[in-house]
Order: sequence, then C-alpha cells, then structure tokens
Amino acid sequence: MYLIIVYDAEPKRGIKLLKFLRKHLIWIQNSVFEGEVTKSQLELIKYEIKKIINNEKDSVIIYRFESQKYTSREIVGLDKNSTDSFI
Amino acid sequence: MYLIIVYDAEPKRGIKLLKFLRKHLIWIQNSVFEGEVTKSQLELIKYEIKKIINNEKDSVIIYRFESQKYTSREIVGLDKNSTDSFI
Repeated sequence: MYLIIVYDAEPKRGIKLLKFLRKHLIWIQNSVFEGEVTKSQLELIKYEIKKIINNEKDSVIIYRFESQKYTSREIVGLDKNSTDSFI
Repeated sequence: MYLIIVYDAEPKRGIKLLKFLRKHLIWIQNSVFEGEVTKSQLELIKYEIKKIINNEKDSVIIYRFESQKYTSREIVGLDKNSTDSFI
C-alpha cells in the first residue's frame, strides 16, 4: 500500500519523527513523507510513532491508499525534495 | 475531485495561505487541508496560491484524487481538527 504521512509535533519530537520516518519513507516537504510499504511495515511505523509522540500534544496523520494509480501530485512553488540537501 | 494540500511557507505567507485555504477546504492539521472541489475551484486555488507564495522559498503540494473511496485516514495522537479552536 502507499502512504502519505504528515505530522505536527513539537520540535524535539519532530526531529525524532523525521529521523525515524526517513528510514522507511521518502521525505517530501517539511513534515510530509510518502512511500510504498507492506502491512507489517505500516504496523511497525505506527508502533514507533506512538512511542515517539506525546499523545496530548502531537498529531500524526496517516493517509493510506491501495495503490498510487488514483493519485496525482502537483508542486506549486519550490520542490523542497529536490533542493534541500541537508536532510 | 478530492484534494489534500500541504504547504511549507515562511510564517508571513503561511498565514495568508491558511486564511485563503480555509475558505475552500477543511483545515486538518498545522499546514494540511482537505476537501472536495470542482475543477474550476482547483484552478482558482492554484491561481491564488501562486499569487501568495514566494516561488523560490515556499512549497505547496496538491494531491488530487478522483474520489475519496480509495483513501483511508488515521490519526495517531491528537486530532488537532477537533481540539484547536483558535483556527
């Protein structure tokens, strides 16, 4: 399945999410990741996210798609993924 | 069609994007919006986004779906949409 994950977390935990998520998914922009995963990878990702975040302060949204063929993505402005080399 | 829009913009323009996008879409989290739009609404949204952002610094990603039926959304942690009343 294909995932888009966006998060809104306080900086300390945001950095942890960034470091963890880029092991499994493609960094797209700011706090947005995408990628193809298996069901067990998804379970692992959710498990780790729950360990990292503060449930009362942080929010992570996981959009799940059966395939990528129904989606299109358009970037208006800067393509951060191709320009930010610090990640 | 159904849209998910995420943006990464400097605060001054981020506020303008927020104010503009919430007229057309549902605010989900931080810099994430969703909603059903017509083709002409999408054109308007893209036109306005281009007017607001700085092309060399800001980035807006528009995910487009033919329908919502292939998607699922799961929130891990806080549901900001139901808790943040300041928006």
